[in-house]
Amino acid sequence: MIKAAEKIGRPVVLQKYGGTSVATAEHIRRVAQRVVARKREGNAVVVVVSAMGKTTDQLVSLSREINQRPPWREMDMLLHAGEIISASLLAMAIEKEGEPAISFTGAQAGMITDASHTRARIQRVQADRIVEDLGRGRIVVITGFQGITADHEVTTLGRGGSDTSAVAFAAGIGANECEILTDVDGVYTADPRVVENPRKLGWCSYDEMLEMASLGARVLHSRSVEIARRFDVPLLVASSFHEAAGTWICSKERGEKEFSDMETVSVRGVAHNSNVAKISLVDVPDHPGVAAGIFTTLSRYNVQILLIVQAEHRGGANDISFLVSAETLVHVEPHLHDLAKEIGASRVVIDDQVGTVSIVGDGIQSDPSIAARMFSSLAKEGINIDLISSSNLMLACAVPKKRLEDAVRAIHREFLE
Amino acid sequence: MIKAAEKIGRPVVLQKYGGTSVATAEHIRRVAQRVVARKREGNAVVVVVSAMGKTTDQLVSLSREINQRPPWREMDMLLHAGEIISASLLAMAIEKEGEPAISFTGAQAGMITDASHTRARIQRVQADRIVEDLGRGRIVVITGFQGITADHEVTTLGRGGSDTSAVAFAAGIGANECEILTDVDGVYTADPRVVENPRKLGWCSYDEMLEMASLGARVLHSRSVEIARRFDVPLLVASSFHEAAGTWICSKERGEKEFSDMETVSVRGVAHNSNVAKISLVDVPDHPGVAAGIFTTLSRYNVQILLIVQAEHRGGANDISFLVSAETLVHVEPHLHDLAKEIGASRVVIDDQVGTVSIVGDGIQSDPSIAARMFSSLAKEGINIDLISSSNLMLACAVPKKRLEDAVRAIHREFLE
Repeated sequence: MIKAAEKIGRPVVLQKYGGTSVATAEHIRRVAQRVVARKREGNAVVVVVSAMGKTTDQLVSLSREINQRPPWREMDMLLHAGEIISASLLAMAIEKEGEPAISFTGAQAGMITDASHTRARIQRVQADRIVEDLGRGRIVVITGFQGITADHEVTTLGRGGSDTSAVAFAAGIGANECEILTDVDGVYTADPRVVENPRKLGWCSYDEMLEMASLGARVLHSRSVEIARRFDVPLLVASSFHEAAGTWICSKERGEKEFSDMETVSVRGVAHNSNVAKISLVDVPDHPGVAAGIFTTLSRYNVQILLIVQAEHRGGANDISFLVSAETLVHVEPHLHDLAKEIGASRVVIDDQVGTVSIVGDGIQSDPSIAARMFSSLAKEGINIDLISSSNLMLACAVPKKRLEDAVRAIHREFLE
Repeated sequence: MIKAAEKIGRPVVLQKYGGTSVATAEHIRRVAQRVVARKREGNAVVVVVSAMGKTTDQLVSLSREINQRPPWREMDMLLHAGEIISASLLAMAIEKEGEPAISFTGAQAGMITDASHTRARIQRVQADRIVEDLGRGRIVVITGFQGITADHEVTTLGRGGSDTSAVAFAAGIGANECEILTDVDGVYTADPRVVENPRKLGWCSYDEMLEMASLGARVLHSRSVEIARRFDVPLLVASSFHEAAGTWICSKERGEKEFSDMETVSVRGVAHNSNVAKISLVDVPDHPGVAAGIFTTLSRYNVQILLIVQAEHRGGANDISFLVSAETLVHVEPHLHDLAKEIGASRVVIDDQVGTVSIVGDGIQSDPSIAARMFSSLAKEGINIDLISSSNLMLACAVPKKRLEDAVRAIHREFLE
């Protein structure tokens, strides 16, 4: 990691703008003004940018017209053009505002990845050139989402790739902060589409954010938060359209020290996910290695498993239930009967009429009154709890999908209003 | 230069498709079928491709919305995305037709240029990777128009850049032939929009093609023909939409040997150009260095000069006239009066109501009867000749613009019908 600020003698700020923030020439102009303002406050500024608006979707559908199963390498080659367009246009817009700027492809910026096309893993960030251009007073604009292998093959980072790029570059240059500027202006105590007036959090910890993401909150992709946590890069999630304060995501230590004006509540937010299905394997023989066998088999089908609950049933047999995302159900469903036979379960039950509601906050499990309050608030609404899972950071319940939003509101009222 | 055919054991064919040939998914599919057919005849095939349809124009106008004077480096960055899209889509389409394919950016393909952004000069083609992939049985698809500097900066080659790329790659890998597949299906004896039934030439020499291009024929950019001549790469200009025979452009020696069924006529074609303006400097003192002074001054203004004629006038003074392309007139016009003063000319006359009509063919000048027939055919139509210029390969006349098409038809009738 380069400590860019020390070399340059100014704080280094990395800003990331998503596709909706650069959807048109007019949007790009506004982003340029905001970037320039940040520089004129005395910072060195690096910008990571996504493709304009729907560009990536349009390229994908064009490729599908030509080849339903295009080679992954060629998909990466195709898609990486989108960010090249937005990055060069943004550099032009910044120049127009009177500051020198330079755009870099993933390759030029030194984003070195493995060769797993369409979902490449970052190996390292070779940030010398970025730091050199910052040192010359330039604003550096980098294409998000893309990298290059040691063999000069173009790769893309997969879902949430631009956020991941941003955090990796922030870590690679040792940026003082990393601002994720997007169409949501922070992390809320619940989804504003469900709860009438959720509060925006001043800050939350990396771990809390990761739990919220895995439980359905769609603010940041987990991968970017994991990298931020590993390299302790403070993230700010804020609006790209207006200047309101956003939410800081940082270590618990830093958050408690720097944002001490925030009240310390255990429950930071209510997350929910309606996009799940429950699979139950009934009467699974109770001997060691059975659960391992199930999940080894499942991992072959690229299924994302969200919650696992094993309940003791009756003498010598268990029920094992797990939730998968609704999209991946189709991949796993054809194999479930073979799986049940293999492990000796009496049958498989699939229920796609469930959803999850969860509370997130550090230390939740250590205070049993919190669980009691959550379950009571659901009981008062007559909402049946199907599964329960908990960790130090969260408490999650599967409930009937048609009562899910009621459940979110009830729990939010209980803890956060 | 790598002799790819020797390494691979098959003839190597390079095909270049222009923007109109890959304008839609359906067009790309048809190009893929044609490329695959060429491979299945037993060739190793390299394809150089332009951006789809109007992509480049759209990117240019988007950049103008953002910055009227965008940095050239950023223009190159922006525009090079266009060919990345078309090249990767074409590779996908070829895979769909059942042949392995791989797309390369200019950088990956080894197109090394100088750092003159938007009009870079090719320094060398580092074609090892192309030859390696051809050796593995892959069809290699390369983005035209773009290159990379030794410092990893993206460049574009300027006007006619994709043709230039194609010929440079053909030379670099020692391709057996280079096919330029486009929306015109060959080189004609005159512009079909002016003359009713011009004939398509079976072949013409590099030199004849260069003269025709400089005199207004818009088939190939001169730069690509010059590279082809230097490395003796035979070019085929043919239609990308149907299979009709095109026109070969090659050395005179090869043309006469291989295409001997063609009649040997001196006059190969009639070219014309209505897009010119005549500038005359009147009463220029007749002493050494004056002409040099004029054209040194003009070269500063990036003016393309098409024809220069100096006529002796009366004792001690000359008139010097030259033609410039109409677009460049605006650049030079503001400086003409200073220029006239500087060299002592009595005045400057600009005439934008002229055009040029020319005949092209090797050895034209050596047969005076050809000039006589050309001038007579114009006289018979009552068309006044304003300027005359000639070389071993051409004879050009400036005539009134409003009679230009009549002049083309009269001369075509005289020599080529």
